[in-house]
Amino acid sequence: MPAPTEHALPDRLVRALPGRFLVFDGPDGSGKTTQITRFAEAARAAGLDPAVVRDPGGTHVGERIRELLLEHSEEDIGARTEMLLYMASRAQLVAHRIAPALEGGPASNRFVLADRFYSSTLAYQGTAGGVPAEEIFQAALIACGKYRPDLTVIFDADEDTAASRLSPLLDRMEAKGRAFHARVRQGYIDQAEQDPDHVVLVNAMRDEDRVFADLIATLDTRLGALLTSRTNP
Amino acid sequence: MPAPTEHALPDRLVRALPGRFLVFDGPDGSGKTTQITRFAEAARAAGLDPAVVRDPGGTHVGERIRELLLEHSEEDIGARTEMLLYMASRAQLVAHRIAPALEGGPASNRFVLADRFYSSTLAYQGTAGGVPAEEIFQAALIACGKYRPDLTVIFDADEDTAASRLSPLLDRMEAKGRAFHARVRQGYIDQAEQDPDHVVLVNAMRDEDRVFADLIATLDTRLGALLTSRTNP
Repeated sequence: MPAPTEHALPDRLVRALPGRFLVFDGPDGSGKTTQITRFAEAARAAGLDPAVVRDPGGTHVGERIRELLLEHSEEDIGARTEMLLYMASRAQLVAHRIAPALEGGPASNRFVLADRFYSSTLAYQGTAGGVPAEEIFQAALIACGKYRPDLTVIFDADEDTAASRLSPLLDRMEAKGRAFHARVRQGYIDQAEQDPDHVVLVNAMRDEDRVFADLIATLDTRLGALLTSRTNP
Repeated sequence: MPAPTEHALPDRLVRALPGRFLVFDGPDGSGKTTQITRFAEAARAAGLDPAVVRDPGGTHVGERIRELLLEHSEEDIGARTEMLLYMASRAQLVAHRIAPALEGGPASNRFVLADRFYSSTLAYQGTAGGVPAEEIFQAALIACGKYRPDLTVIFDADEDTAASRLSPLLDRMEAKGRAFHARVRQGYIDQAEQDPDHVVLVNAMRDEDRVFADLIATLDTRLGALLTSRTNP
């Protein structure tokens, strides 16, 4: 048995993860994808089998929708059209990847770890894009049914931090400028304030190790509490 | 002034069309697209300027979505995913084509003539595909906002009639078989029964001239009534 390292997940967290649906989200450049890779590796080292999915994408149709969304179009894609395209990709992701991965429940060694989910739509097309949150929630309910994330971790980063991490390959969202980024960031912060039971912020404006340590502590506290409620109803 | 022909639109109908949003719909093989072409020509001959749009499609993004939907995929596209893709195309069509065409209102010479709209989604993904109608109506409200068709004409045809008209180039819907077609047809008939103020059936199981004559008589009656309510509030 290997000795625990600084990357090992606490035992309570390992017991709490099976059957859970986690989302890591945040503005472009928040470093969330790096943290997803690192967390998935730590979970595998602990004997778990995370289903890591990206949204949009994660299915054949979803990847086609993702291409369509990221393609620079001569005609603008309206925020409402974008929102519905993301929901279409999400409906497919839920049916083909998320629902099957959660089938085994807490007795399995599986959990879902999604890189973005409808929290992104609420921030980008909602707060920043002007589509009313109520319409996005309705569309999410249609697309996802009962599959709502147990916990969404928002990696919060200001524009300077985000800009320093972005690859030079700008996609159409990343080309929209600083004011847009500021609105997106606020959209994420609003979600954590409005639904603190399901959305939690992690300060992502520090070095990667420090962010990861905070992430683990946050998940251990939040999912550990769910574990207690699960075993002691 | 040219003499009226058998194809000329009645004067009351010509006065009733400006500012209106019409949909021609029906099962594959119902002949609706032929009737759209013929009706648009008759409207132009009467000095009107119909905005003829096809759904899905009608915009750059919409045509990409249409390609995605018609492509034979190795992975099935779920009915809920399909439904949301149609709504995404529709949101773009409303914003970029339908809303601008209706801007001039009754004082203009424009009206909208759509080849399919959410009535197709209700029949194909709803009645035939199993997505609850309530979800489709909610998604349609998000996609289309206040832009609801004034009148949807359903060209009703049984499977034998439809099969005799289908091109050999079968798309994925047309490949689904006779039982599927029967459910789709019933889905359209249900809509006419449930919302008779906005959905009307035309018997499309006769020759093209007879169907066109019925169409004109139906539109004259139904839109003529709207004209009376418009001028005598």
